Amino acid sequence: MTKTFTLAAMADLETLAEALPKADVASAQAATDRQNSLTKPPGALGQLEELAIFMAGWQGAEKPEINVAQALVFAGNHGICDRGVNPFPQEVTAQMVLNFEHGGAAINQLCRANGADLSVVALDLDRPTNDFTKGAAMTEAEVLSAMNAGADAVNPEADILLLGEMGIGNSTVAAALASAVVGGTPEEWVGRGTGSDDDGMRLKSQVIAEGLSLHQSLLAQPAGALLAFGGREQAAICGAVLAARAQGIAVLLDGFICTAAAAVLHGVDPALLDHCLVGHASAEPGHPKLLAAIGKRPVVEFDMRLGEGSGAALALGILRSALACHNGMATFAEAGVSDG
Amino acid sequence: MTKTFTLAAMADLETLAEALPKADVASAQAATDRQNSLTKPPGALGQLEELAIFMAGWQGAEKPEINVAQALVFAGNHGICDRGVNPFPQEVTAQMVLNFEHGGAAINQLCRANGADLSVVALDLDRPTNDFTKGAAMTEAEVLSAMNAGADAVNPEADILLLGEMGIGNSTVAAALASAVVGGTPEEWVGRGTGSDDDGMRLKSQVIAEGLSLHQSLLAQPAGALLAFGGREQAAICGAVLAARAQGIAVLLDGFICTAAAAVLHGVDPALLDHCLVGHASAEPGHPKLLAAIGKRPVVEFDMRLGEGSGAALALGILRSALACHNGMATFAEAGVSDG
Repeated sequence: MTKTFTLAAMADLETLAEALPKADVASAQAATDRQNSLTKPPGALGQLEELAIFMAGWQGAEKPEINVAQALVFAGNHGICDRGVNPFPQEVTAQMVLNFEHGGAAINQLCRANGADLSVVALDLDRPTNDFTKGAAMTEAEVLSAMNAGADAVNPEADILLLGEMGIGNSTVAAALASAVVGGTPEEWVGRGTGSDDDGMRLKSQVIAEGLSLHQSLLAQPAGALLAFGGREQAAICGAVLAARAQGIAVLLDGFICTAAAAVLHGVDPALLDHCLVGHASAEPGHPKLLAAIGKRPVVEFDMRLGEGSGAALALGILRSALACHNGMATFAEAGVSDG
Repeated sequence: MTKTFTLAAMADLETLAEALPKADVASAQAATDRQNSLTKPPGALGQLEELAIFMAGWQGAEKPEINVAQALVFAGNHGICDRGVNPFPQEVTAQMVLNFEHGGAAINQLCRANGADLSVVALDLDRPTNDFTKGAAMTEAEVLSAMNAGADAVNPEADILLLGEMGIGNSTVAAALASAVVGGTPEEWVGRGTGSDDDGMRLKSQVIAEGLSLHQSLLAQPAGALLAFGGREQAAICGAVLAARAQGIAVLLDGFICTAAAAVLHGVDPALLDHCLVGHASAEPGHPKLLAAIGKRPVVEFDMRLGEGSGAALALGILRSALACHNGMATFAEAGVSDG
């Protein structure tokens, strides 16, 4: 078992990419050669071929396998809800965590259908982050604590890690993170989330503009957006992404909120996300724009906008199909098929 | 068990839609109501919600299930290969059928990964259809025989039917069918298929233009395009689509070639395809255009262009996920979650 990943200080993020493992080029090349020998026209499996080659690189094996798929859903609460950015009460975060634990949510069904082991990590739900229009959402100690909680939750035996989140108000936090990391006005990143009306959308943009103005100096430091805007589940996602990388485990990110969290790492060094796929393109309007900014193509697109890791779980099924073809198909020579 | 579907004459196609079952509106409405009661913002599962509601209508049940998923791959050979439209020899059709039977092809892996029972139906491989630039590809008796072979292969116990095909030369046939049914020049429908170069593409367009010119009178009769251009696997797909409909079984069509076959039925009466989903949008350039023409949105898009039913099998996994959410999720009331 690999040593557990621990981040001692946020400043360490800047030098981290050098120390972390990279994809194994030889295994990816062997997988590419294998794809070109299988009984199909070269390239005919399209994106499925790319997914198999990606997994080969990160598993360091010509024939990568998914025996253990771990899904982690992190939950947190947000002080910005005091400003009324979400039509649902904050209690819903804890209610949905119970729903996850009782097996009643979408992510439970999607993990079962696609073969992932689901764990839910509730992060101090009774202690929301600070209202980011009044001060920093989190202290450095709080961010590190949440990042390390995320890292600790990663199963080192996993062959793939799926990440998701739950937190009333966190589409506002995600839009703030995206705006801080990528740039652009709040209006460009704000969406309806769980169901904001036009007034709600304007309010979301307004509080983000206040936050961006208040936290200019924080935002100049590595991953400072996590200090400025939070939240705990976003920091935990970053920690889990890094811990997975330290152990050579590929990651399937979920939608807008999950990707916005990971985009903070991209802002520090784009190479920190080299081992990450994005499961789906959300119907939340900021997501396709954010994917373009960090250079990631989503695995699927179904107009979903639920979070919880739901898009990552769907993408896992596709990844399993990709590897089934890659590992199980006969070559032209094995099958006695003429290759043109 | 429902009576087996048999088509006695191609002229009967024109009156068929009236006699065939329709989706059950009450079940679809009950499924819609259920979706709106589940623990998620309404609409947050996007296309997964639509898929579940579609299946509810065709299964006549608020909670549709997929216990038996049947995949049928029809294989045929084509006289147009005498004109050199495909870089592979026609023997590859039989070789790939053997590969299917031995479990070595992509469709074998995709059916296993997504839980479909695969059967391959080889249709007179040693008797290719006629070269359609010299005369009709098939007689009415041959078309009816192949359609009824397709119908007979459908398992009446299936909860969903996946359709695919294999036949060297059949991307030329598909482009001819699309051009005949939808209109437009051959160039608009021709693609690289298994690997045609630019000269090959021009040749494909050329032979289709010759065929369209030769068969003008045949093309005026219902499904006359099947007589003019064939082939057996295309006719079998039409027969299977109709037999599934007669038994209320929803269908997942595959890519360009499979959809072009079904488009012949659409040309007779669009309602004949009401029970059909299209599994994926192929990288073959004619496919998105054909989907637009028949008003179908593909379930997934992965730049695949393999045929065999591969896109339908991938879509089956998504359909299973859609039903898992629909049937397994808790309602707001059941989970004790505030609904805003």
